[in-house]
Formats: sequence, structure tokens, C-alpha cells
Amino acid sequence: MLAGGQSWIFNRSPIILSTGIVGGPFEREGRIPEEFDYFYDDLWMGEDSYEKAHRKLIEEAVTIALKKGNIQKEVVQFMIGGDLINQITPTNFAARNISIPYLGIFSACSTSMEGLAIAASIINNDGANYIITGAASHNAAAERQYRYPTEYGAQKPPTAQWTVTGAGYAIIGKSNNQSKPRPKITSATIGKVVDMGLTDPFNMGQAMAPAAVDTIIAHFNDLGRDFDYYDLIITGDLGKIGRTTAIELLKEKGIPVAENKFLDCGLIIYREDQPVQAGASGAASSATVIYGHIFNQMKKGVYTKVLSIATGALLSPMTFQQKETIPCIAHAVSIEME
Amino acid sequence: MLAGGQSWIFNRSPIILSTGIVGGPFEREGRIPEEFDYFYDDLWMGEDSYEKAHRKLIEEAVTIALKKGNIQKEVVQFMIGGDLINQITPTNFAARNISIPYLGIFSACSTSMEGLAIAASIINNDGANYIITGAASHNAAAERQYRYPTEYGAQKPPTAQWTVTGAGYAIIGKSNNQSKPRPKITSATIGKVVDMGLTDPFNMGQAMAPAAVDTIIAHFNDLGRDFDYYDLIITGDLGKIGRTTAIELLKEKGIPVAENKFLDCGLIIYREDQPVQAGASGAASSATVIYGHIFNQMKKGVYTKVLSIATGALLSPMTFQQKETIPCIAHAVSIEME
Repeated sequence: MLAGGQSWIFNRSPIILSTGIVGGPFEREGRIPEEFDYFYDDLWMGEDSYEKAHRKLIEEAVTIALKKGNIQKEVVQFMIGGDLINQITPTNFAARNISIPYLGIFSACSTSMEGLAIAASIINNDGANYIITGAASHNAAAERQYRYPTEYGAQKPPTAQWTVTGAGYAIIGKSNNQSKPRPKITSATIGKVVDMGLTDPFNMGQAMAPAAVDTIIAHFNDLGRDFDYYDLIITGDLGKIGRTTAIELLKEKGIPVAENKFLDCGLIIYREDQPVQAGASGAASSATVIYGHIFNQMKKGVYTKVLSIATGALLSPMTFQQKETIPCIAHAVSIEME
Repeated sequence: MLAGGQSWIFNRSPIILSTGIVGGPFEREGRIPEEFDYFYDDLWMGEDSYEKAHRKLIEEAVTIALKKGNIQKEVVQFMIGGDLINQITPTNFAARNISIPYLGIFSACSTSMEGLAIAASIINNDGANYIITGAASHNAAAERQYRYPTEYGAQKPPTAQWTVTGAGYAIIGKSNNQSKPRPKITSATIGKVVDMGLTDPFNMGQAMAPAAVDTIIAHFNDLGRDFDYYDLIITGDLGKIGRTTAIELLKEKGIPVAENKFLDCGLIIYREDQPVQAGASGAASSATVIYGHIFNQMKKGVYTKVLSIATGALLSPMTFQQKETIPCIAHAVSIEME
């Protein structure tokens, strides 16, 4: 399985069988509403706190993924997931209600690909027949925890990003029991923590760009691949500024970037005229776009070889207050059509 | 690798090559100071915040494990770890300085065995030659976050437990490159979230006991084992009350319990006359005792077959304030001498 360096090759090709994607009202107004399975009408989702609503997003995404795949919950051996909230309680509480043996993970907005890499590694080695994995975030819960409650009306600079309200979960299986071809997971590269000394929590994209570049280069080196191998290389939530920085850094390292096939999930979810500043962010940014939009595009044949690099900023409000810089990480998973 | 149910069998037996155990001044006064490699003289550890001190515990434990195993950092492919602090920032920041590709996990005080299970699963399947994994906690950082800053002098009921200041990290390898026999990892059982409706955050042991019992029973069923198979079955941080509850629950389920070989890490670290109420807790409780005391006892031949069940309470101060009950989890790993 080890491809050298920090990468794995999955020679038995675990399959993404089905996915469940949910969002909130703001995501419904975005660019890709048709890629979501369900939208909640408001951020409360019938609960009395945003954190409880956050839990509901996860439960609904899991339920939909099971239903769409026609897979019984009882045959799924493990659930692997996480979110941005302290002690990842929305995912913990969802796992209580879902009642599948559970591995909690934290990798901020790169949680989706950490989960997919671990799930694929387990499935590749006969450690499970089915695993459900994903990530979620809730705009109002994240704002309250990381910055200010939305109700305070605090202003944000143009470098800030908008936390996605949503959840994306995928069922990974050992073989394809669906009627049509499905994307398979062929390799993964686990990121190192990269910290270039940036300190502005309103400019996460720029802080995360070097981590994305570090992981892309490690992936290319470990697997002997380059941009030409992929139809699409897509980052998690670099946003406008982070994507530009990543392209510059790649070019500096002597890696020619085909900009039309180097996209960012954070620039796909919302319309230009939505007030999202530099783009989307949050653990749900990559989770909803990769398991929704990209999964669907691959099934349609638009893309056949995709490298998904989810990016995470591993800070907390407290580390910012304690004048620490922002450590970042990125995990990459390659997904190819059968 | 799947043994059925929620368990894995590691037929290629990953090895615990070496470990690093550090503690604070209160742990030095405890029952097993000789099982620690290094103690800090105070809780600040030369830093200006408890959270930065917390990070230092992790870095030191990793450094010691590498040195004792005579293993170069550069050959270790992955670091897997976590802690109790929001967004597991002490581990994130330690991973930045250690600079090994990093998988962050969160499973509260069951983090140690979640990490060991994932590490063993990766090594068992040729996904790495060496992985370093562990967990840590810091009493003052945890008190401030979960309850009150220690300086407030808040009183605690006798059911409360004392968060260990410490870190335990272990290097897991594909084969034994040390001069003497080492414990090998033979199986793991991933826990479900279990919530019996308890709400008292000052009585975690009792809340966690049903999760420990659920995982022990699953382990026995999945692997066809019972108490007789093991020399020692040891939980993570149930403390006095939780251990008693677990024994009662096991008996109720018709499982005869040999009480002299059913121990708890949380009852091993401190002396009876230290003011720790119902025992130790924290992610470092199982991490320091399993990778320190138990690792050493196994090398000496005192135990040859151990089942380690780390227990975690997956709540947060906010879920308590929002009147949620306490969801708990336990992950089990069996460790046997070569």
C-alpha cells in the first residue's frame, strides 16, 4: 500500500458507491443547487441551537447516502467523520444516533479527505465491506465559535471566506454493487503541517495555499505523476486568494499549472453575487463539492481522473489570542472512474 | 483484516518498538514515577500558557520514543494523535514542529487506542514501516476549558476525576528491529457511541462504563474470546465508580469477571492519598499507563496477553450547557508478547 514517502496506492480500488449531500438556504441560492440532495429552509432546522442543527445535517447526509445506495445501515462497519466544532460534538452526537462503530477525526477543513484516505486504506485491506465517511460544517455555529455570533453583524474584510452550511457523506465499498460504473479511490497522500508564519484568521486561503502545494508536490513525487495525469486537480477551500497564491507557488517550484484544470471547491458552491467575499470554506466545502458535484460529473464522464486536495487550518480562537501563527495541512486523494 | 462485526485481526502483528512517556510534577508524586521517562517541574514547562506547555509534552514524548527506539524521525511515515483541547491544537502544533505527515484524531480519552488501532491497521497492510501514535492531556489546560481555571479553587464532588498531565507516544513498526522481544498488536475493536442518558460531567466514569462494556462484549463476540484469553483487561479512565459499574454491567450480561485481572489505568497512576477523588482521567491516562507501565510489564514477562480499552466521553462544555446527555465510546486493542 505504501507508495513511498507519504502516499498510499490502493491496488484493490475501493469504490465510492453512493453519497448524501445536504445544505442550508444559502447553498440553495448558490451555483450548484442541483448537486445537493436536500436543503433545509433555515439554519435552525427545527432545533433550538445551531449545534444541534449541525448534528442534523450529518444524520441527514448519512441517511440519504444509505438510501441512495440501497445499503442497509447494519452492513456498514464503520463511520469516520468530523467537523469544526469543539470536541467535534455534532459528529459525535450524530454517530450516537446512527449507531455505527465510529472513528472521530479532526483535520479542520481537510477532514473530508483524511476520512476518505483512512476509509480507503481500511477497505483496501479487507478491514471492512462498507465504511461511511464525510465531513460537515454549519455557518452560524462556526461563526459563533471562531469569530462572533452572526447576529452581532461584525464586518469582514474581502479576504474572508464563507463557511458552508452542509454535510457530504460517502459510502465506500470493496466492490461495486451498484448498477452503473462508479468512481474508485486509487491513491492518497497524507499532508504534513505547514506554517508559513501567517497570522490573519480572516485570510485562511493564503495561509492554507502552501500546505496544498506541499501535498500536491509530495503526491507527484511519491507516485511519479504530474498535472498531465489528471483531468482535474481540485483544492478544498483556498478561495480566490489562496488559489492564486497556490498557482504562484507551484510555478515558483517549476511546476507548470494548467489553470483551467486547477479548480477550488470554495469557488464552485456560491454565485459571484452572493456576499461570500473570497469564497466558501468550512469542512463541508470539499465534502459537499467532491461527493456531490464532482461525484456526479465523474459518473457523467466529464472527468475520469481527479485529484482532490482538502485544505485545513489547524488553529483555534485561543491559539490566535495567544499570538500563534496558523498551522495548515492538506490531504490528497485521487479518484478515478472504473 | 476484518474479524467480523466491528473488529480487526492483525495477522502480520505490528510491533510496539519503543515509547516515550512524560508527566508533570503531580504524576512524579504518584504510584508509578519509574514508568515515566521525564517529568516537568511545573505545569508551565517554561511556556507562557498551559496550552503551549501541553504541546511541549507531546513533542517531548515523541522525541523520547524516537531516541529510545534509536529510530530516525525521517523514517517514520505518519504521526497519528490527538488531545482534549478545542481543535486539538496542542497536537496540531506539535505535529508542525515534529514535521511528520499527520492524521489528527479526536476520541476524547479513548484517543490513544483509536490511534493505535488505525496505526496497526496501516502497518499491517504495508501502508508504513513506522508510525508514531499517542495521546496527551494537561490538567490545567483541561480544567480551564472544561470546568473552571484551577486558580478559582472550585470544589469537586468525590465522583470527579483528575486529568493527567502527560503524554504517551509509541512507535509502531512492521517488524522488530530492537534487540529484545516486544509486544505486538494482534487485534482491535472499534467502539460504538453509547449514551445511557447520564448528564453529570463530574461523574464521567459512570457515564463511560457502559461504552467500555459494550466494546468488551463486541470484542469477545467478534473474536471468540473471553476473560480467560487475557492476563489483563485494562480500561482507560473509568476510575473507582466507573470500574465498579463496569463490573456490575458485565456480570448482568452473564460475563464472569475476574476482578483481579480487570484493572483501570485511572487507578494506577496516583497514590491513594493524592486528592484525585475517583481516580485519574484524561487522554494521557491510558496513553501513559499502557505505553509506560504496561509496556514495561509486558517486556518483563508479567503480562503476555493484554486487552486495553480506552474510554472517552464525547461531550463538550457547550453540549452540557445545552442540556445534552453524555455520549461515550471505547476502543479496544489487544497487545500480546512476541
